[in-house]
Amino acid sequence: MRMTFRIVLLAIFAFTLWFIPPPLSIVPSTWHLFTIFISTIVAILFNIIPIIAAAIIALAVSILSGIIEPAKAYAGFSESFILLIVAAFLVSHAVHKSGLGKRLSLHIIRHFGHSTLGLGYSVVATDILIAPAFPSNTARSGVLYPIIYGLAHDCGSKVGDNTQHRAGSYLMMTSMAGLTISSGLWLTAMAVNPIGVGIAEKMGIHITFGSWLLYAIVPTLIAFALIPWMLYRIYPPELKKTPDAPLKASVALEHMGRISRNEWITAGVFVSMLTLWALSGVFPIDKAAVAFGGLGILMATGVFGIDDFRSQGEALSTLIWFAILFGLSTQLAEQGFMNTIAEHFTHYLSGLSWVTVYVLLIAVYVLIHYLFVSQSAHLLALFGIFLSVGVQAGVPGELMAIMLLFATNFNATITPQGSSCNAIYLSSGYISARDIYLYGGAVTLLTFCIFLLIGTPWILAVR
Amino acid sequence: MRMTFRIVLLAIFAFTLWFIPPPLSIVPSTWHLFTIFISTIVAILFNIIPIIAAAIIALAVSILSGIIEPAKAYAGFSESFILLIVAAFLVSHAVHKSGLGKRLSLHIIRHFGHSTLGLGYSVVATDILIAPAFPSNTARSGVLYPIIYGLAHDCGSKVGDNTQHRAGSYLMMTSMAGLTISSGLWLTAMAVNPIGVGIAEKMGIHITFGSWLLYAIVPTLIAFALIPWMLYRIYPPELKKTPDAPLKASVALEHMGRISRNEWITAGVFVSMLTLWALSGVFPIDKAAVAFGGLGILMATGVFGIDDFRSQGEALSTLIWFAILFGLSTQLAEQGFMNTIAEHFTHYLSGLSWVTVYVLLIAVYVLIHYLFVSQSAHLLALFGIFLSVGVQAGVPGELMAIMLLFATNFNATITPQGSSCNAIYLSSGYISARDIYLYGGAVTLLTFCIFLLIGTPWILAVR
Repeated sequence: MRMTFRIVLLAIFAFTLWFIPPPLSIVPSTWHLFTIFISTIVAILFNIIPIIAAAIIALAVSILSGIIEPAKAYAGFSESFILLIVAAFLVSHAVHKSGLGKRLSLHIIRHFGHSTLGLGYSVVATDILIAPAFPSNTARSGVLYPIIYGLAHDCGSKVGDNTQHRAGSYLMMTSMAGLTISSGLWLTAMAVNPIGVGIAEKMGIHITFGSWLLYAIVPTLIAFALIPWMLYRIYPPELKKTPDAPLKASVALEHMGRISRNEWITAGVFVSMLTLWALSGVFPIDKAAVAFGGLGILMATGVFGIDDFRSQGEALSTLIWFAILFGLSTQLAEQGFMNTIAEHFTHYLSGLSWVTVYVLLIAVYVLIHYLFVSQSAHLLALFGIFLSVGVQAGVPGELMAIMLLFATNFNATITPQGSSCNAIYLSSGYISARDIYLYGGAVTLLTFCIFLLIGTPWILAVR
Repeated sequence: MRMTFRIVLLAIFAFTLWFIPPPLSIVPSTWHLFTIFISTIVAILFNIIPIIAAAIIALAVSILSGIIEPAKAYAGFSESFILLIVAAFLVSHAVHKSGLGKRLSLHIIRHFGHSTLGLGYSVVATDILIAPAFPSNTARSGVLYPIIYGLAHDCGSKVGDNTQHRAGSYLMMTSMAGLTISSGLWLTAMAVNPIGVGIAEKMGIHITFGSWLLYAIVPTLIAFALIPWMLYRIYPPELKKTPDAPLKASVALEHMGRISRNEWITAGVFVSMLTLWALSGVFPIDKAAVAFGGLGILMATGVFGIDDFRSQGEALSTLIWFAILFGLSTQLAEQGFMNTIAEHFTHYLSGLSWVTVYVLLIAVYVLIHYLFVSQSAHLLALFGIFLSVGVQAGVPGELMAIMLLFATNFNATITPQGSSCNAIYLSSGYISARDIYLYGGAVTLLTFCIFLLIGTPWILAVR
């Protein structure tokens, strides 16, 4: 009954919004699309219906009411970066199933497993170290995910038997949050970083691999120190101290014996995928095709069987909700909704000091990410506008550009759909969509403060 | 080892084809794409690797070798009619889970359940009767599938415990084959029938709902009489006579009691979907959005839970292999491969009698379906060419047009990817891809003979 009540409230909210006259000279059909999108987010945020149900209802309403053409609504399903999530998720199942994930995670526990907090730090540290070679944070999440899944299992934390909060939820959330800063540390750690640098270049602002790293290093290291610890406080694992874990891991590793045939094959495929993904920054290699190729080899060699597919409905669910929300958000952007808001907002900025303009621009840029699905869409739609508004208001160009680029990365955990990386962690079942809104939101607030309060003076000092 | 040997043979076949000089002035990249496509089909046909593995390897090779652009290779994933399969498959799970599928199938058994053959006939008869109101055979397969799934279960035939051949395999194959003739009986029973009629109209050939039915009725009824019986002989169910089944079904129905809440909701959703699908011939209603909307309601009301998604990996597998093969075949057609073959073939026709030309054209039109994924793609690519070649050679226009349209329908079971309908039956696990090549192929041969030998004189007599 409680649930029915909440569904009724949501329906009233959606209907009211639908029928009020659109502000800011937004056309009615765009306003209706916004109503559908924001109602979907509210439904997910307040746990009214699952994200997949919310997404498919939003899709059906948008198409059947004639607001979006079917082809545009479905466009997300054939996006390479979304299919990459699916393929990487399936490969991660093979990494787990072959025992390779367990072996890697046992090695991590042997070295850092005295406490769950220690594991949290080691996960983010691994991410930060491998990041410069990975031009896609989605691909990187595909690498980290099976290892973290193994870590959770080895800590006796599983989905379905009410032990997910023992360690798994914390580790998944920490790794997801860690990706936002590993991606911001290196120019080459995220697909849209170089695109943003390219846009800035056209406006006469030069950022190199080295200057990017210099600007990023101080705020990133502080965020690295604080994120695993903060999540440990506000989203605590039930399992805290594990003094015997390293010894147990050593025993378990001995017990696992030599690397099996399936582990060798999986390791070979995994390393080949990593190599090709790393090379995809230099050569035009489609990352999803690499993952599909890896999966194909794992299937042809029997490591990933046809029966393994049966239990992969979660990957389907992820594909569906992510592709739908991406399609809706893209339409919202294409119909100029985000631009209208951004332009309207910049009217209020005239006459303000550059510092105020700078802070407001970054804050709005982060908050507006609630409306975007994936980081690339956000950067492509708004980075250029925000940068030029800031520069016109007197903000130093390099500062404005690099901080917007950092924000493109650190705003990623503000919603479940904020980054394609989040999807793979959410699909694990260890964390809920609502958890991401709450604790991912808290992480975003923390990184926002760190980058603005410490990053800004640091950048001004060293530039 | 046997399997390794077959994989090696396949690799030799593929490599040889790849490196021989392309015939008929086909450009090398198109020839390589053809090599990939035909090797995939051979791999599936000879059971070398599963269809999903074959498809993803084909995808990876096509993209990573630079033969197809990623966006084109992935285009199938956002095709509305392919997403319709996925959504219909998920809804059918709810129909089964709610008990509604069981109830409907028990009613059928109560009336026609004295033998498995009787059930086969009743399934195809139901299909034929509801077909004129369904402008999409894919949607119709989504309606029939959960009922047949229920029938199989009620006959004690399940996937996974080695009882699938008791009754389920036969019923699935029969229904799949039945769809090819129900779609050909009515102008409005299949999405591309009216498109073909429109193309013919532009060439001065007039076909109406009535004349279509008149031409189709005799060969279709003969095919209806023979298909369930032939499959009963060559693809026999282990369970044959079931004299007590109707009584048992009555008892089971009584035992089921009154219709439950979930059944009512599912029935409401199901009937609404049927209504909207039926109306989609008149109004521009996207059929996949209808199915997604139905699924959304089933999820919001808890009939289809979030946990139900976990076990729907088969739907993901179907989406992936179908979308990939569709993308590859579309590229093959766009690069002119099928046209080149068709044009080359028509060179040989000059000087032959119109009867010979007619038979050859129909035979080639059917056989070339091995290269096509989905019936729509085939019709759009080749119907116009074949029709004009036939008419120029003196074949009566109406005969040529209607027989090509019949062939577009009855060639559908020649391969697993020949129609989107097949995908849902294949995903059940009751039949294998190889079964479709063999027994679906046999059905195609049978209907080819019926339509050519009996249909032709009948059409000439009544036109």
